[in-house]
Amino acid sequence: MAKGQVENVPDDGLTTKERRERPITAVHTGPGKGKSTAAFGLALRGWNQGWSIGVFQFVKSAKWRIGEQSVLERLGQLHDETGEGGPVEWHKMGSGWSWSRKAGTEDDHAAAAAEGWGEIKRRLAAQTHDLYVLDEFTYPVKWGWIDVDDVVDALVNRPGRQHVVLTGRDADPKLIEIATLVTEMTKVKHPFDDGQKGQRGIEW
Amino acid sequence: MAKGQVENVPDDGLTTKERRERPITAVHTGPGKGKSTAAFGLALRGWNQGWSIGVFQFVKSAKWRIGEQSVLERLGQLHDETGEGGPVEWHKMGSGWSWSRKAGTEDDHAAAAAEGWGEIKRRLAAQTHDLYVLDEFTYPVKWGWIDVDDVVDALVNRPGRQHVVLTGRDADPKLIEIATLVTEMTKVKHPFDDGQKGQRGIEW
Repeated sequence: MAKGQVENVPDDGLTTKERRERPITAVHTGPGKGKSTAAFGLALRGWNQGWSIGVFQFVKSAKWRIGEQSVLERLGQLHDETGEGGPVEWHKMGSGWSWSRKAGTEDDHAAAAAEGWGEIKRRLAAQTHDLYVLDEFTYPVKWGWIDVDDVVDALVNRPGRQHVVLTGRDADPKLIEIATLVTEMTKVKHPFDDGQKGQRGIEW
Repeated sequence: MAKGQVENVPDDGLTTKERRERPITAVHTGPGKGKSTAAFGLALRGWNQGWSIGVFQFVKSAKWRIGEQSVLERLGQLHDETGEGGPVEWHKMGSGWSWSRKAGTEDDHAAAAAEGWGEIKRRLAAQTHDLYVLDEFTYPVKWGWIDVDDVVDALVNRPGRQHVVLTGRDADPKLIEIATLVTEMTKVKHPFDDGQKGQRGIEW
């Protein structure tokens, strides 16, 4: 949370302002908690800056609704009503496909994920949002449903100043390579280890 | 984000419901980003559940205002106006003391931190909030401004079902010991390494 001191100034031909304004490509990975929660926290900050926020969830059932979705959609509505903050769109990829691959067939899930990614690419090209949260995006990449080289190309060559945050375990090394900010969340201790089930407000 | 399967059921004499409803004591520590952001994300979820949220920031200048504060306070106001969500209080400990200990004297900072902790203890005893975020709390503990044994005692013996999230680097082992959920955020790659300064909407 520190405002941050630069440790060394690179010889990249950019001015400080240009360097400061480079868009962020963040990856939240690792087995610990907080990957998505921290990404939605960035969305909160972005909303407060008046940014257009696009959340694309590659997880769970389309019926699943987490607290962040309710709140961010409410904030988007507030924007539409009062002009405060920025607009918010929250999309769930596919209809009811699950990261656990229990529902539907695998082909359905793969097609839905690829279709979702196609839409994100179109939006990046059109500069639709200021911040994109691609939640649990590492899984369809890991499973080969979305081509990692295509993702790298679209992210590296995206126009303008669009920030992108990717979350999920086991991020592909190619995504780590092009990211400007990578944080690994490590599980040190978890109540599920101790026989405690998830609870409303904490887990979702 | 998974709803979670319990790996083993402990022989602790509690029913599943009792175990499920044990309050969470979470610690977000480590040198990586996302410790506070993930904690504020939990506050967002809690608000959505109608919980009373108390944020106590042990950091930075009292003048410093992060996006999360604006948004959570706006949500608290929405609660007061429309009954949606829960009430929100956001407190900064002391008046202008800084985690970098640059402003004021160290004695002032220590006294302000101890006073802030005293207020939190009173609220825990009175069951004022459903969720407490003690942001950057590990630092005043590390510096001896707040007695860790007193914190352990107050947290372990707090009444009712009050959730507490502590954030900051170098969490005291005694805090790790009593926590039910500990996540370590590890820095893998950071734009500051590469000469990029913090930017609005991402860093604050």
